[in-house]
Amino acid sequence: MTLTVDLNADMGESFGPWNMGDDAALLQVVSSANIACGVHAGDWDIMAQTMALAVKNGVGIGAHPGFPDLQGFGRRKMHLPHGTLGNLVRYQLGAAQAMARAAGGQVRHLKLHGALANMAAEDKAMALACYRAALDVDPDLIVMVLAGTQQQAAVAELGCNTACEIFADRAYNDDATLVDRKLPGAVIHDPEVAGQRMLDMVQAGAIITESGKHIPTRIDTICLHGDTPTAVQIAARVRLMLEGAGVSIARFGGSPVA
Amino acid sequence: MTLTVDLNADMGESFGPWNMGDDAALLQVVSSANIACGVHAGDWDIMAQTMALAVKNGVGIGAHPGFPDLQGFGRRKMHLPHGTLGNLVRYQLGAAQAMARAAGGQVRHLKLHGALANMAAEDKAMALACYRAALDVDPDLIVMVLAGTQQQAAVAELGCNTACEIFADRAYNDDATLVDRKLPGAVIHDPEVAGQRMLDMVQAGAIITESGKHIPTRIDTICLHGDTPTAVQIAARVRLMLEGAGVSIARFGGSPVA
Amino acid sequence: MTLTVDLNADMGESFGPWNMGDDAALLQVVSSANIACGVHAGDWDIMAQTMALAVKNGVGIGAHPGFPDLQGFGRRKMHLPHGTLGNLVRYQLGAAQAMARAAGGQVRHLKLHGALANMAAEDKAMALACYRAALDVDPDLIVMVLAGTQQQAAVAELGCNTACEIFADRAYNDDATLVDRKLPGAVIHDPEVAGQRMLDMVQAGAIITESGKHIPTRIDTICLHGDTPTAVQIAARVRLMLEGAGVSIARFGGSPVA
Amino acid sequence: MTLTVDLNADMGESFGPWNMGDDAALLQVVSSANIACGVHAGDWDIMAQTMALAVKNGVGIGAHPGFPDLQGFGRRKMHLPHGTLGNLVRYQLGAAQAMARAAGGQVRHLKLHGALANMAAEDKAMALACYRAALDVDPDLIVMVLAGTQQQAAVAELGCNTACEIFADRAYNDDATLVDRKLPGAVIHDPEVAGQRMLDMVQAGAIITESGKHIPTRIDTICLHGDTPTAVQIAARVRLMLEGAGVSIARFGGSPVA
Repeated sequence: MTLTVDLNADMGESFGPWNMGDDAALLQVVSSANIACGVHAGDWDIMAQTMALAVKNGVGIGAHPGFPDLQGFGRRKMHLPHGTLGNLVRYQLGAAQAMARAAGGQVRHLKLHGALANMAAEDKAMALACYRAALDVDPDLIVMVLAGTQQQAAVAELGCNTACEIFADRAYNDDATLVDRKLPGAVIHDPEVAGQRMLDMVQAGAIITESGKHIPTRIDTICLHGDTPTAVQIAARVRLMLEGAGVSIARFGGSPVA
Repeated sequence: MTLTVDLNADMGESFGPWNMGDDAALLQVVSSANIACGVHAGDWDIMAQTMALAVKNGVGIGAHPGFPDLQGFGRRKMHLPHGTLGNLVRYQLGAAQAMARAAGGQVRHLKLHGALANMAAEDKAMALACYRAALDVDPDLIVMVLAGTQQQAAVAELGCNTACEIFADRAYNDDATLVDRKLPGAVIHDPEVAGQRMLDMVQAGAIITESGKHIPTRIDTICLHGDTPTAVQIAARVRLMLEGAGVSIARFGGSPVA
Repeated sequence: MTLTVDLNADMGESFGPWNMGDDAALLQVVSSANIACGVHAGDWDIMAQTMALAVKNGVGIGAHPGFPDLQGFGRRKMHLPHGTLGNLVRYQLGAAQAMARAAGGQVRHLKLHGALANMAAEDKAMALACYRAALDVDPDLIVMVLAGTQQQAAVAELGCNTACEIFADRAYNDDATLVDRKLPGAVIHDPEVAGQRMLDMVQAGAIITESGKHIPTRIDTICLHGDTPTAVQIAARVRLMLEGAGVSIARFGGSPVA
Repeated sequence: MTLTVDLNADMGESFGPWNMGDDAALLQVVSSANIACGVHAGDWDIMAQTMALAVKNGVGIGAHPGFPDLQGFGRRKMHLPHGTLGNLVRYQLGAAQAMARAAGGQVRHLKLHGALANMAAEDKAMALACYRAALDVDPDLIVMVLAGTQQQAAVAELGCNTACEIFADRAYNDDATLVDRKLPGAVIHDPEVAGQRMLDMVQAGAIITESGKHIPTRIDTICLHGDTPTAVQIAARVRLMLEGAGVSIARFGGSPVA
């Protein structure tokens, strides 16, 4: 049997005159793109360009909603009522759907951004509020979750289409959380190391922690970054090493988690 | 044969803690609602509330996109490239579609707001850019146009579903443009006068100008206002007088103009 | 000796086309105005109008900075680094100073708004970050603080000019915190009750809690509200009762707290 | 007699997570910096950093206000009433003054940005509305104007402190307007050419047009750009050539134009 995995990256994170990331390069590496929806980053023109480029590259389109905090890039915690969170997610998802349709594509998946994602990874009720709202708009949407977090617990409860994600360039603790960015070794900068880790985890069907512990996990997609030239190199290297070992790169199918 | 006409009003124009208009009262008068899309007014919570109330009242939902100018309420002219105008319209339409779907309804029509509408009424190429973009997203969308303007010329060229609109409370010049607000008599404040004018125009199938001239026009819908208590009274009175004279109030069908 | 107290209220909280509060009425009651600075509410036009009206009424002008969250009216908690908090306060203070100067007045005091105020009332380091930043811009600025909170502790440490504030329409717990709004009796709606309470507290030089306990406190100013017709009535009644009992209403002097 | 000229550049045009330009490099070339004020670009943190760096480099600080259009970077025409234009300018100037003061500096000059500048260059009444508003806030402010335009006519009428500006990298028509960017030769990319032109103009005390015509003009400052690596090279080369020819680089004095 051939192993298959999806590669995803955040993109469309420019705004107005300001550029961020090398989306054109990344779109040649990934199979799924998480596209900012004009609230924490992106604007209607950036969305249109990025969607068109994703369609051209045959890359799956995802809505990537975030907090209404442009200066903070959606990375600062905000405390919104669940009803507002739901409306915030619906609004951004709908805008993304229209932009995708006009570009000849469609939104297949949804992934929360920044502080919204981090808070939902620790708070199942918050994750449920966001995901339920999105599924109201499209019941077939594939919800991309951080494997092993409350995000995954939420989709398990909902029984919705799901893609479970691990990180190419972040070390894991033994409880499946990410090692704090301030600690040495938390972020992996060596493409070879990142590539080998991903290959090991995909073949093991498990998150492999810093200590070497295996946490069995469904792995549907690997999160890559593209905000620096190095990041794009890591992304390309991870893909190459996976393919070299016979792992096929393709969009996730999205079946529900048990 | 029974005459039928739609009544429409702009709503969902509150924002955050700030209220505007009496949407609950208006929704008992109109058959179609033009709902702000979070860019010149409205926000995701206001949209959700207004959509839900429209669904409950059986009122047709329209997206009402405007310029990205919250302080100016979309009433100040902005000069955007046609590509950007198209993306701006798509974005807002898509957001409105998602909010409507989550509220158990759907977006039937689109009407441009404020300076965006005024500029498109005088500039067919601009109207085409906006409407084509919207129809990319939903080819069955009904485009509401100011009767007798370049907006109408644009939909005639496109052959798309259309609703032609006249104003209940504004006087017309002999070329079908509106009398300048600064001139006496430009705005009609007397509910009886407004109601009788609308009845006359609907029965005549024509815009009747200040001078009494008849300009034959397809009239699908009458624009009412609800931003002041008097406006709501006018709206209610217009409806009563039309119904009293045997005119049926119902959502427009949306057939294309010749 | 004549007792003297200042009366303050938040104002200038309209935005663009949206109105909030009856500033013209309130400016005839208060001696100090806390004017929104265009970030959580207010805009440059609203600021100019409100400043001009304050100058005309001889009311002291205060800058009232808040979080960058227009939809949430600055009432939702945000977590910003202290450096950013300081810059946020400086920016808004400077803008207010320029608008005041152009209106023929000047900014005398500063009061934090909404969630920014609430968070600083519980977190002295945060209060210090905000106040130090403001004093960098104007070392003579009078900082208005919630009496008995960490805001007061911060100004005591800084030794800066200060005005200590109590609320006309809120009940107090025995530890000088406000009774939770959800509890019965937390908000006082009866103008007579509010007026008598304020008279008692000013004469006692103490916060008088729900249980009747006296917490000795310097009282420089009383916070009134004006966002509802009732609120304006309470404000006017409090002033009348204080004056009737021989308490003089005048701007605070601003001497540092011990 | 030694010729002296100022060199200025726009900076502080990053926003939140998005970077623009190489301000650190430019601040080693210019003698005056036009710093964005948080409305079309810049935010309170960017302003604080840029102001601090300008102070450290002994570079004169200018407020650089623009239209409220972040996505459009203040480059899209907007039509605002003169009263609103004045308030918009005051607001941004005040914010800049506070940020400068906290950084240990002060705002010496003001230069309009983008479409606001372009519109004021053709419309004296608009320029007067902006400049009068700024001078209300600080009567000693030096207003930087595009030499030979309605901006200069406005400051001549006001008699205020002034700095007249020419462009290092733009060709001029015979009526002192800039050659349309779309035409060949409109933008000068060769550092040698740019440097020689500036030297010629400064020595001639005149704008030298494409056709070779001399238009006598007071030249106080030369506008450089820094948004591309090439732009920074041009800036450095212009400075070097001017200094090599014995022209001294120093902040403008700001005397009024006749």
